[in-house]
Amino acid sequence: MHLSELTHPNQLHGLSIRQLEDVARQIREKHLQTIAATGGHLGPGLGVVELTIALYQTLDLDRDKVTWDVGHQAYPHKMLTGRYNNFSTLRQKDGIAGYLKRCESKFDHFGAGHASTSISAALGMALARDAKGEDYKVVAIIGDGALTGGMALEAINHAGHLPNTNVMVVLNDNEMSISPNVGAISRYLNKLRLSDPIQFLSGNLEEQFKHLPFFGDSFTPEMERLKEGMKRLAVPKVGAVIEELGFKYFGPIDGHNLQELIDTFKQAHKVTGPVFVHVSTVKGKGYELAEKDQVGYHAQTPFNLATGKPIPPSKPKPPGYAKVFGHTLTKLAENNPKIIGITAAMATGTGLDKLQTKLPKQYIDVGIAEQHGVTLAAGLACEGMRPVVAIYSTFLQRAYDQVIHDVCIQKLPVFFCLDRAGIVGSDGPTHQGMYDIAYLRCIPNIVVMAPKDEAELQRMLVTGIDYTDGPIAMRYPRGNGFGVPLMEEGWEPLPIGKAEILRNGDDVLLLGYGTMVNTALQVAEILKEHGVEATVVNARFVKPLDTDLILPLAERIGKVVTLEEGCLMGGFGSAVAEALLDHNILVPVKRFGIPDLLVEHAEPNQSYADLGLTSSQISEQVLKAFFASKQAAVIS
Amino acid sequence: MHLSELTHPNQLHGLSIRQLEDVARQIREKHLQTIAATGGHLGPGLGVVELTIALYQTLDLDRDKVTWDVGHQAYPHKMLTGRYNNFSTLRQKDGIAGYLKRCESKFDHFGAGHASTSISAALGMALARDAKGEDYKVVAIIGDGALTGGMALEAINHAGHLPNTNVMVVLNDNEMSISPNVGAISRYLNKLRLSDPIQFLSGNLEEQFKHLPFFGDSFTPEMERLKEGMKRLAVPKVGAVIEELGFKYFGPIDGHNLQELIDTFKQAHKVTGPVFVHVSTVKGKGYELAEKDQVGYHAQTPFNLATGKPIPPSKPKPPGYAKVFGHTLTKLAENNPKIIGITAAMATGTGLDKLQTKLPKQYIDVGIAEQHGVTLAAGLACEGMRPVVAIYSTFLQRAYDQVIHDVCIQKLPVFFCLDRAGIVGSDGPTHQGMYDIAYLRCIPNIVVMAPKDEAELQRMLVTGIDYTDGPIAMRYPRGNGFGVPLMEEGWEPLPIGKAEILRNGDDVLLLGYGTMVNTALQVAEILKEHGVEATVVNARFVKPLDTDLILPLAERIGKVVTLEEGCLMGGFGSAVAEALLDHNILVPVKRFGIPDLLVEHAEPNQSYADLGLTSSQISEQVLKAFFASKQAAVIS
Repeated sequence: MHLSELTHPNQLHGLSIRQLEDVARQIREKHLQTIAATGGHLGPGLGVVELTIALYQTLDLDRDKVTWDVGHQAYPHKMLTGRYNNFSTLRQKDGIAGYLKRCESKFDHFGAGHASTSISAALGMALARDAKGEDYKVVAIIGDGALTGGMALEAINHAGHLPNTNVMVVLNDNEMSISPNVGAISRYLNKLRLSDPIQFLSGNLEEQFKHLPFFGDSFTPEMERLKEGMKRLAVPKVGAVIEELGFKYFGPIDGHNLQELIDTFKQAHKVTGPVFVHVSTVKGKGYELAEKDQVGYHAQTPFNLATGKPIPPSKPKPPGYAKVFGHTLTKLAENNPKIIGITAAMATGTGLDKLQTKLPKQYIDVGIAEQHGVTLAAGLACEGMRPVVAIYSTFLQRAYDQVIHDVCIQKLPVFFCLDRAGIVGSDGPTHQGMYDIAYLRCIPNIVVMAPKDEAELQRMLVTGIDYTDGPIAMRYPRGNGFGVPLMEEGWEPLPIGKAEILRNGDDVLLLGYGTMVNTALQVAEILKEHGVEATVVNARFVKPLDTDLILPLAERIGKVVTLEEGCLMGGFGSAVAEALLDHNILVPVKRFGIPDLLVEHAEPNQSYADLGLTSSQISEQVLKAFFASKQAAVIS
Repeated sequence: MHLSELTHPNQLHGLSIRQLEDVARQIREKHLQTIAATGGHLGPGLGVVELTIALYQTLDLDRDKVTWDVGHQAYPHKMLTGRYNNFSTLRQKDGIAGYLKRCESKFDHFGAGHASTSISAALGMALARDAKGEDYKVVAIIGDGALTGGMALEAINHAGHLPNTNVMVVLNDNEMSISPNVGAISRYLNKLRLSDPIQFLSGNLEEQFKHLPFFGDSFTPEMERLKEGMKRLAVPKVGAVIEELGFKYFGPIDGHNLQELIDTFKQAHKVTGPVFVHVSTVKGKGYELAEKDQVGYHAQTPFNLATGKPIPPSKPKPPGYAKVFGHTLTKLAENNPKIIGITAAMATGTGLDKLQTKLPKQYIDVGIAEQHGVTLAAGLACEGMRPVVAIYSTFLQRAYDQVIHDVCIQKLPVFFCLDRAGIVGSDGPTHQGMYDIAYLRCIPNIVVMAPKDEAELQRMLVTGIDYTDGPIAMRYPRGNGFGVPLMEEGWEPLPIGKAEILRNGDDVLLLGYGTMVNTALQVAEILKEHGVEATVVNARFVKPLDTDLILPLAERIGKVVTLEEGCLMGGFGSAVAEALLDHNILVPVKRFGIPDLLVEHAEPNQSYADLGLTSSQISEQVLKAFFASKQAAVIS
């Protein structure tokens, strides 16, 4: 069967192992071709090809429900559920999403993007099934990295206490999250993986038997029988921890052996209550380069399939924010042993891999555990260290209470560095860094800032390290900087809460925050062509807002425009509006930012255009709102 | 030694067991007298008297660090660290706080209020110690309820992977959180508690031996020796799960036996790496009524120590919001089997205990696991159930990412009911429900509302159940309603996004949200005395805001006042300001709410007065801002 003819996963039911192997081959081929062309997550999907096929061979997906954790491991799922033929549109505007979405397919039973959610969702579905008196299977597939996230453990704890609720957890154990896993649970799983249960324990037992007084080196047949009996008796069982938590344990099984997978799933489906199937997989399976470099091939930009080398962009790009961040932080940390960089399983993405390599003692990877990471930082700060918590804007949502309760209320000097703030492009709605301005600035005691470019990021990094009066946060975008000159040392901290004027003009006041300062400058240029002179301010701080500078300007100029790459509700423009009204300065304010909607996956420039956030769109709106006569003059 | 003379916990070092027992007696006496008079948490502190004394007997608190989870179990700690003499000011304005605060005592090494934070904080301190090359002990004390919170498990996973980092976790295992615990981990701990390790396993082994062919009923001495050898060999060890997670396990030990506690702590301090001391305690120990009713005596209003009965208020109070909520939800659930009430270990506090009793199949307690609770609700909603998630405003912070990622992005019909929104009184800054308006309204797809009184809460409850287009949230305060008439049935849902005009007047527009609508009406009365006629609007919805009603009123009346019980930054007033400016309605807006600061513990009325939120204070400010001549006329 060619996959282009497979429109429903139940078509897998009648296929032989050989035919299923052919399906696997086709999935891998399409997967590799697509990711090489479009970029995306490479290794995770390759590792679960057989797991997905085998599981779906044992399910009726017209009735049964499957929740995939994170979603980037679900590309084979997408190909088996009617999306093979347009899979090449992956992660492109109006194409197949890079994660799971309920609105994309009826087989995407639960959306995903962030980690550790699948067991909770599956258990909810299972409880709903039982409440309705229905009878279908519910399966959650979770990676070993995501399993150590707190909410997954909360869900395990709950499910394991419900002996009559049928729910299956499939552990896709590839020994990795994006980077190699950390933590005791991973170590335990690794121990299970490495052991053939019976052999291992038997060997161990035999060794110890020899030291008992009346055994010795040779075993009589009677003693042999005793030994066999004892094995069934009281030896610690592989998976005992999981069984203590209330799950029936199956595994570890070879995640690339279709027959073994199918047999095990069939057996496990018969169990009453929560069941845990431990599948050993190889991330990147079937693509040698990815098997060998599992971190490097977790996710890719477009690359050459034969050589594995990224296809270079048509013109060289300036260094990315994360790279500048990692490089500068490492430089600072070399001279300040109190600096500790903390990541939640995102060493490469945040740029902290540089610190990890150069100064491993000043680097902590807590795994997929943002909550713990933030409160760990609070503990470090209590004892005089200078923790720098590098977590994407979207993932810091996971530690919101810890930011409020453990850091801000106690006014502890923790420095939050929020990468991927603003529009993130092809990752889509689950990963947009839209909310951080609103969710951080409402908390007392915290300073919140954003650099206008990568050089200012360097200065803000020094500013944040220098500032020890309390918590401080810096947000910056995904992707490349503007290519402005960078310094290798000698950065000066910025005064807290002070904005800067970049350009003077009497007709309109453009207040930019973060990357949108650059847009504001472009807008000013366009306005100038229409005879409108703009003052441009780089706000730098949304909290504390530089009212000393902004309010007199607003009052004098009389027309205010705010620009930000974040949600308009409660964001930077809202802060400006609050300040103006609090001081009874009644001037018109036009706010540009992300309106109250989800931003779907697309190239960032496409998103800006869709949201009306390009400099030409903003200029047009400003002219229309404030300078209708000039705009009309130009148009006519 | 009398405790009034104990100014430093190290003074415990020289005391005999008999003297320490006397210290324990004094702590219990003071604890009971104080809580009976002031109200507060009764059971948790009584359970850890000996644990605290014994631990401090083995520590040097000039150097060693202790982090107490939640903090309400730390009253004995407070009495042993210089706060015995003014302990009677507990939870009162300017008195001793009900939780831990770094600014209250140098011995409060980490603030607490929310659960499950102590291990992360302790590990941070331990890593800081090692980075600085210092040498002190770090101990986290966590309850068995808090242990099952996700972030505690994340911390365990991290600590267990650091074999050279000395950190001690003391489990205060009283088999309860506020209510009896749920979950597989609790069941496992309970198994440990109930078993004398050696006895239990030996018995089990012996039983099974009998079924082996060559044993039989009688054991020869040789076989006896074999059995003893086997015990040392391969039998599963008590605490094996915890040991698999990388901790050395001590326990279970009797939490009310000082000698056993001291001996165990001393031994455990010698261990290298993470160590776990499992202490069995009795919640409410030493006060018979509390031992018998551990849920009822978790926290108390002032009560009669002899009878245990609450001291009735001087005049009868109207029913509390939580009670009205629980009662009404249960009524609705009786006629709608799709309704599922979800709590995170707060059955009594949220009023869901009524649902639990009447319709246990429509009730789920997930334990201290807000994240899991929210995503479980999302799973239930996927399958057509009507989940009602009752979590305090301050605790929903713990599930912020789940609200965004699993519920709002997927537009799933989950109904969030945020009790304790606004000023919470004597619980203080960690528990104020200040941020929810700001942190919820910036998320797309969600409806956010607040009732003006307990009767409107009933209607909003029906509204939320009725609304299936997406997520919806309702916030309401702690404490008693206004005593307005309630209905037993026949509630009509409110139109989504529609406000109501309560009073008309041409001079000023008062926009109230939630409980502050009542304040707005009072303000209008006071203003009337000064010849100022106010229009009062009950906004009901902050999202979607009823701009159709509000904007024309604002434009016509020309002076706007907003009133809310939440943070001013990004809150309801900010939403009104955004709407006015977006529509270029340039009128003065005076916003009343909680300014950008922490609100310390005090009676709510004291807090309102401190924050300038009483009706007379607001009236005065409104007169000053908008009607200076009238104010002057009155004052003169």
